[in-house]
Parts: sequence; C-alpha cells; structure tokens
Amino acid sequence: MTISVEKINAIIASEKATFLENYKRIVESPSVSAQHEHQNDIRETAQIAAGYLKEAGAQFVKIYETRGNPVVFGRITNKEGAPTVAVYNHLDVQPAAKGKDGWTRDPFAFTEENGRYYSRGTTDDKGPAMTALWGAKIASQLGVPTNIEFIWELEEEIGSPHFESFIEEARKDIRAESVLVSDTLWLSPSTPSITRGLRGLQGFLVRLRTGQKDVHSGVTGGAARNPITELCGLIAKCVNTTTGEILIPGFDKTWKKPSQEDIDDHVRSGFTVENFKAANKLTSLRVNTPEEVVSRIWLSPTFEVHGIAGGYQDEGLKTVVPPFAEAKISMRLVPGQKPEEIAKLFTEFAKSIIPDCEIELEHGLLPYAAPSHLAQNDYIAKAYEFGFGAKPASVREGGSIGAVVTMAEKLNVPVLFMGMSLPEDSYHGPDESFAWRQVEGGVRSFVKYFELLGSK
Amino acid sequence: MTISVEKINAIIASEKATFLENYKRIVESPSVSAQHEHQNDIRETAQIAAGYLKEAGAQFVKIYETRGNPVVFGRITNKEGAPTVAVYNHLDVQPAAKGKDGWTRDPFAFTEENGRYYSRGTTDDKGPAMTALWGAKIASQLGVPTNIEFIWELEEEIGSPHFESFIEEARKDIRAESVLVSDTLWLSPSTPSITRGLRGLQGFLVRLRTGQKDVHSGVTGGAARNPITELCGLIAKCVNTTTGEILIPGFDKTWKKPSQEDIDDHVRSGFTVENFKAANKLTSLRVNTPEEVVSRIWLSPTFEVHGIAGGYQDEGLKTVVPPFAEAKISMRLVPGQKPEEIAKLFTEFAKSIIPDCEIELEHGLLPYAAPSHLAQNDYIAKAYEFGFGAKPASVREGGSIGAVVTMAEKLNVPVLFMGMSLPEDSYHGPDESFAWRQVEGGVRSFVKYFELLGSK
Repeated sequence: MTISVEKINAIIASEKATFLENYKRIVESPSVSAQHEHQNDIRETAQIAAGYLKEAGAQFVKIYETRGNPVVFGRITNKEGAPTVAVYNHLDVQPAAKGKDGWTRDPFAFTEENGRYYSRGTTDDKGPAMTALWGAKIASQLGVPTNIEFIWELEEEIGSPHFESFIEEARKDIRAESVLVSDTLWLSPSTPSITRGLRGLQGFLVRLRTGQKDVHSGVTGGAARNPITELCGLIAKCVNTTTGEILIPGFDKTWKKPSQEDIDDHVRSGFTVENFKAANKLTSLRVNTPEEVVSRIWLSPTFEVHGIAGGYQDEGLKTVVPPFAEAKISMRLVPGQKPEEIAKLFTEFAKSIIPDCEIELEHGLLPYAAPSHLAQNDYIAKAYEFGFGAKPASVREGGSIGAVVTMAEKLNVPVLFMGMSLPEDSYHGPDESFAWRQVEGGVRSFVKYFELLGSK
Repeated sequence: MTISVEKINAIIASEKATFLENYKRIVESPSVSAQHEHQNDIRETAQIAAGYLKEAGAQFVKIYETRGNPVVFGRITNKEGAPTVAVYNHLDVQPAAKGKDGWTRDPFAFTEENGRYYSRGTTDDKGPAMTALWGAKIASQLGVPTNIEFIWELEEEIGSPHFESFIEEARKDIRAESVLVSDTLWLSPSTPSITRGLRGLQGFLVRLRTGQKDVHSGVTGGAARNPITELCGLIAKCVNTTTGEILIPGFDKTWKKPSQEDIDDHVRSGFTVENFKAANKLTSLRVNTPEEVVSRIWLSPTFEVHGIAGGYQDEGLKTVVPPFAEAKISMRLVPGQKPEEIAKLFTEFAKSIIPDCEIELEHGLLPYAAPSHLAQNDYIAKAYEFGFGAKPASVREGGSIGAVVTMAEKLNVPVLFMGMSLPEDSYHGPDESFAWRQVEGGVRSFVKYFELLGSK
C-alpha cells in the first residue's frame, strides 16, 4: 500500500478550515517561557494542546507537571506491536511585544497574508507541531500502522531546565524507538535540511550593582563606578569584538577548529552567503566566503551579547551614571564542549576582572551530533521528496535544542530532525511567520515518514 | 536700611500657600527637553513662567523664540539707574517615567512629604527659579532698589543649542551688569557652595546598524556582526573600564592633571567621601580618598556610558543578535579643553575602530572658571549666612551649564553661582525633591543678595 499525494491533498483541502482555527487558537495563547507574567498562558497552551491530541485520536494524553512548566504527552496507537515514533516539538515561544524589536504587527494576533501566517510561535515551534499532529491524524485515518507519540515541551526557549525530570517520570509511558524533532530550519526555500548536529549553549546574566539610583554624571562622574562601562570592558576581554574570536583564558583548549574537509563537506550543502544574508536581512558580516560563514555558524563556538540592560535607553542623552547594569550573554558550543566547563571558565574569568559582579547561569545545553547511518535518515529524505518534491541537503544547525541530548541519553534512542521552518520565517525575530506551503508539504512529509517507519 | 530676617519670614509665611500653588503648577508641566513628545509641555511651561513674572511685578516680559525651545525673559525695574542683575535658571527637566530608573513616584505629580517637595524638576531647576523669583518679589516689596532680570532657559538639559542665538537677539534688552546662576549643588546640607568653576561637556550618540531585524543567535551567530559587542569594544578602547582613565589617542595632550596644591585647596572645602557616597547612594567608588575623589569629580575629565540601547533589555535571556545598537556617551571637560577638539579626537578614533558607525554629536559645552576677586563673591557668602546661618565653602561643580560660558562671553559680564540644591535632592535621578528649608533660606538669601548689590 502506498498513499498518494492526491489522497492526502484531498483531506488537507477538506480539513484546512478546522486546522487554521486550531492553529490560530494555539498561537494566540502567548506562552512566553522567559517571562513570569505568562505563566497562565503557558498553562492555557498546555490545555489547548492536550485537547488537540484527544481530537486527533490520541488514546493516551497526559500533562506531566514538573517544578517548572508542564510537558504535554500523547500517543495515537494505530497498531499494537507496530513501530512507535515520538515527534518532539515545543509550544513555548520567545518574548515579543508590539512595536518593540521591529515588530510591526501585534505578536499574538494570528493573521494571514500572501499565504503566510504571522504571529509569535507560528514557525517556532507551534506551526511545525500542529503540522506533525495533522500528519499523524491523516496517517491514522489512512490506515498507517505506526504508533505516534507527541512530546510537547513548554520550556525549550529557556533551556529546558526541567525536561530531564519529565523524562525520568515519563519514560515508563514513552514507547518510542526513535524521536523525530521538528524544530529546525531548511537551508533555503527550495532545499530542506537533514540536520547532522546542533550547537550547545551556555547562557549568562552578568549583573553589576554599584549604587542605588541614577546619579548625575557631572556631580559624581570620574569617582563613581560605571557598571555599563565595566561590563563593556569585561565583554571586550572575553571576545575580540570585531572578529568574534573568543579570548577567555583556557577556552581554546575546549574545542578543535573544524578541518578543511569538514568545512568543504558542509559547503557542498548548497549554502550561499547571499541567501544567508538575504534571509536574515543582514547588511554586513564578519566574514564573506561560504567556507568561513559555514565554519562559524555550524562548526564553531560563539560569544554573543544579546543586550545590556540598565542606564538610559530612550531618545537622546541622559547624563547619568546608572547604579546597575546586566549583560545578557550566551555562548554556542560545538560537540566536545561541555556547558559546565564553559560556565566555569567564564565565571572565573569574569570574577577576576570584576570581583563583585554577580553571574546567573542560564541555558546549559549540550551540543549534539546525530547518528548518520540509520534507515530513518533515508526515510526523512524520501518524506521530504514526497511532501515537497525537493531533495534535502545535509547541514548542521547553529541553534540548540536542550531536550535533544536528554532524549538521546535518557531514552537511549536515536534523535533525528525533520524541520519545516524556512530561513525567512524570522525565528526569534520580529513578524515571525510560517508559510502555508510548509504546512501542506509538511503534512504530506509526516504522513510519508510514518508510513515508511510502519512498513519496516 | 537693613532688612531683617523676621520681616522676610513674615512675608514668607503669609505667601507660602500661593507660592506652593504656583510651584506645583510649574513642576507638574513635564517640560522634558530631550523628548520631542514634550514640545507642547515646554511651551506650556514657558507660558506659566511668563505669567509668574508678570504677577511678580515684572514690567518687561518676553518669550523669545529660537529655532529650538523658547527662552523666557523678564525684568523687575525697581529703580532706574540702579544696579541690574540677571538671575539665570532653566525650566526644562531631565526625562523621567514612573516605575523606570528607580522612580517610585509619579514624576510629574507634585507631592509633599516631611518638608520635601517631590517631582521631576523640583530641585533642577524649577525650585531654585521659583525661589529666586519669590526673593525678587519680596525685595521689590521691601524697597530694595536693585533691578532684577530673569533668564529662564528651556534647553539646558540638552546642552543649550539655541541659547547663543537667544543672547544675540536679546542682548539689546538685557541690562544686567552681572549674572547669578542658581543651578548648582551645596557641598552638604550644612555647607553652601561658592562655585569656582564648571566642567564642560561633549555628548555622543554612536550608532551601528548591521542588519534589519533581530536574528537567531544560533542560526546566524559567529558570522553575523553583533553591534552591541562592537560598541563594547569601542568603549573599552576609549577608556580603561575599571579606572576610568581616558585612552583616546591624543586626549592626554588636551588637559593637565591637577596639581597637588589645587587638589588640597579643594579638599579644604570640607568635602568628605562618606557624605559623597551617602548623598549619591553609591556602594563603591573607583577611588577612596577625598583627594582622589575631588580630583576626579571637579578637576578631571571623564568618559561615561549612560546606556547602550538595542538588543534585549527585559527579564532573562533572548538569544538574538540585534540589528542595531546605540551607545549613549558623554565626556566632561575641564578648563582648557574645547568640545570641538574632543569631538574630533573621539570621532576619528571611533571611525578608525568601526568605520561604518554613525556618530551624532550632542551637548558641546565649554568648561568655565568663575572670576574669584569680585565683591559679588562676598555678597554671595553674606547672603548665604543671612539666609541659612551657614558659611559657604569654595568648590568646583562637576556638572556643566551651557549657558554660563555664552553669557560670560557674549554679554561680557561676570557669571557667578548661588545654588540652592542639596546633594541628596537626586539631581537627574529618581524621586527628585527639593526641601522647604532651601526655599525659605533661599528666599532670604536672594533678598539679601539683591539688597547688597543695590547698596553699592
């Protein structure tokens, strides 16, 4: 038995309106995990998600509580004894506010324009989650025997601090022999990606308090310590601020520069600097050849400052010395590096520069290298070809998904990737969106993948 | 004839309610010059002020338009041919918003608590302005022959960009043979200051754009330029971020370090590090002896970062590479340094580090050294003793008042200082306030000063 594209397309056409209604409802629930004020929205999203699992035919649905946000789990059992796969997505989203950071739309009002759906979470990662669920429902309707589980996390954007405890509790319920993660990007709108690895992450909030209030920079300037200036100094000692080279003592011993062979191998994916700049709307880069860009975004660690809070942020100048500043920093890590080791190196160095700074560690995520010789890799390639008529390229992902390493280690199963997002979807950026063609093709790809798994 | 304290006190008591009503009305007009949205409030403040001048008996009142904000001018002629003094204050204020930068109160709701009046502008500089006007009105009522002019600027907090053009136009109307500026701080609540000089100022907004939107630091990090990181690097090359030493090439040739004699002379004012830290609520300083603190706040230039706008400022981490950042920087200058010269040194250096950064120059204010051998210095000392029963100390002011040098040069008159604000008033800071005892004593001091000038 082989399911035809036409058959799936007919179901998609007949169920599209219902899908969009459900999609709208879940993306409009502002499940921002980084901000405490959204705690109720996180719970609302979990309830909505559990309801969708039941509607899709899941016989087992459970919201696992953790010491942080819950994890939603469900299983559609199509045939006892048949292969079981778990699809992982996350349902929490990055912070977003209208008029801030370039948002021209209300970030939590779902709208459609030229075949794209706009709202925070449409592509990262509620859209792929809803697409996978729809694919599972259709596969089930069409008699695919594969059993399909869903693991929907609500703390991915803050580094999955309680995912391991969820896995410990839920492992008795999880039957999957493999996991498919759908939270990665295509190389370009015409080239899906088979992701061979992820960078890890270690986040830091570096705080410095030197007073209790803004003071006049004429009255106190020169004698008063300036926390923003001091944090700038620390940052400039940690990284070459022009080239991005990491200068933290001992850091260079924690990783190996990629070999030319490895770089060449990744450049063959079809990566182009022009597409990369255009998709991310970057005016200029630190480096300009595909070899150098690929080497830096996929194969090398980074040190990024996401913002420096404190002081005056509005129009013009306000001549104060602020009492407090906080540098928001993260480092991406490559296979071989351990977040704890990097956290220790940074913390010791920062304390040697500013002894009274306070460092809060965030986001410790191990890097990940995916198994490359499994049948599932072929299934993913075939599923993409069936769903989109496009051949995937083999890439790395520069981003980090904390749950991946946890699932691979604790469940002892292969974790693979079938992403649906496009580079122009504005992952973590303003006016985030997800294209209808990715939903449509994605549903077909998931049906195909489940079918191939079940035909083993 | 000598006016007694009792006589003035009786008038103060009888007019207090009216004064407070007027004071409340003008400080509640949010005349923030740094923010365009307050343009109408600036105009409203000017109208209120002109009305107060008329009520105080000024025969000549005029609002001078400039290409920026207006200047309010008025004159109370008590006796043709008698000495004329101009009192300078400014009626624009620093930015302020409830719940931001440590404000626990509504910054534009005038309230009284334990003999202090709270609201943005109460001490800087509307309170001293209203105090001087009340003093002039009482002096006039009590037959003091001195003619008293008022120059009320509305662009002081943004570096007085149009004050010179005002002076050019108004010089035909200004009859003053000397100017008294009331916009400086006392050394401590028990020690008024005779200010011998002001630091100058050059402000900079350094902008760097490297993209069009926030991008994912995993997807682009390493290849994407990070504008915040690059500005941190520039700052760390301009200043030793721990000691505050300015490293811009050529800068050290623009000023001379203060001599030990000069430092000792200023330390004799009674300055103490403990009072300085307590009044400004500073936890730790770059230096800890009175010699070093005085040398740095009064006698040396500074390089301060007031804030870095751009990137993520809210709770937690958001792992983006921002497309844009703006460093808000200013340098305080000492006599001998010229803002244009400093602007050129900084701009050339910044461009050599980040060729595509954009630099907007703000606030070019010359430093000022006051004439020290005039009778007016004695009058100020006597006025303080009469008003407050306190002997003043000779100090420098670390802050800058752009109009001072313009008035000294263009009107060719001595410009002296009789400030009323206390170190704990929170100049430019949150919960700004002004104490009733400074109003009361200030009114007595102004009456005395006008009387002494008129008795020449």
